[in-house]
Amino acid sequence: MKKSETPELKQNISEWDKIIIGIDPGTNIMGYGILGIKGKQPSMIALGVIQLNKFESHYLRLKRIYERIVGLVDQYMPDEMAIEAPFFGKNVQSMLKLGRAQGVAMAAALSHDVPITEYEPRKIKMAITGNGAASKEQVQEMLRRILNISEKDLSPYLDATDALGAALCHHYESTKPIKSTGFKSWKEFLQKNPDRLA
Amino acid sequence: MKKSETPELKQNISEWDKIIIGIDPGTNIMGYGILGIKGKQPSMIALGVIQLNKFESHYLRLKRIYERIVGLVDQYMPDEMAIEAPFFGKNVQSMLKLGRAQGVAMAAALSHDVPITEYEPRKIKMAITGNGAASKEQVQEMLRRILNISEKDLSPYLDATDALGAALCHHYESTKPIKSTGFKSWKEFLQKNPDRLA
Repeated sequence: MKKSETPELKQNISEWDKIIIGIDPGTNIMGYGILGIKGKQPSMIALGVIQLNKFESHYLRLKRIYERIVGLVDQYMPDEMAIEAPFFGKNVQSMLKLGRAQGVAMAAALSHDVPITEYEPRKIKMAITGNGAASKEQVQEMLRRILNISEKDLSPYLDATDALGAALCHHYESTKPIKSTGFKSWKEFLQKNPDRLA
Repeated sequence: MKKSETPELKQNISEWDKIIIGIDPGTNIMGYGILGIKGKQPSMIALGVIQLNKFESHYLRLKRIYERIVGLVDQYMPDEMAIEAPFFGKNVQSMLKLGRAQGVAMAAALSHDVPITEYEPRKIKMAITGNGAASKEQVQEMLRRILNISEKDLSPYLDATDALGAALCHHYESTKPIKSTGFKSWKEFLQKNPDRLA
């Protein structure tokens, strides 16, 4: 879908209480999802990807990321940015590349005073599907149901729904009671977060 | 020194044939050096660091990098950016952080249409001192001699002279005959670049 190019959407931005832009940064394809909140109800405003494969130069890719995200920020005027940020990678080379893509995306938000929150992929999957090890397809399917996205409005790219998942995860995090850990018991929390056990 | 704050320097920018901004990106201190070229003669215009230690938040650091580099680009209107870019790091975590700092610095340049060239630390040291394993102090001392920098104008931060070194390395690379490899023989080249031997 190309809702980002639908002119009437621009006029409707003021109808939302809050707008969250979700980003799934990558150096080949960068996904984005725009989530509008009215009351406590989230709705999808736009969903898409920034294709970077066509640029051979690493710099042109970074420039493209910057320009497109600034464009999305100008168009949708999001209040906040949620970014999917893996903390582990195959090797230092891939992490450097990923860090650059993240840095450029963050610069686009920070230069427009949009605050950023990062979420690990596991955390996003857990928030959307209840399973931190869910597949990207399962995340997409749950988002489709939660947000009532019609088949024709779904992006063929899982990077796009991943980004929308980051935005929805951020919405859940922003609205949940402060004292809640999101788990029913400490036992459950520790089972699902073995790394948090000191 | 704080030449970047000397107002008369702004007016003199049009006197240079080319201006190169050198950047040594880091997440604690980011060094910069501005090099002016007249004919083939390079001169230092400004030298300094962006202190990031005072910000606890990672995002505030990234935002500060972006804003200060955009400020330098606006002030000195560099034609090109040279960036010191290590390709190897201790671990994936430090590389992700470094990548983000590099990405933000690059976004600042790319958003103002300043082309970027990266140089490995080894390459810069080799270009300035003739020894790819030179210390930062040796790089500083050679820069002081080559560019006739007075003692009072030297930054106490080696990150600043490292950045200026990247700018001077870029100037040398831009002006050297295309066919030259910069080495007297293939034997010497391979001795100094064992990793290039396929």
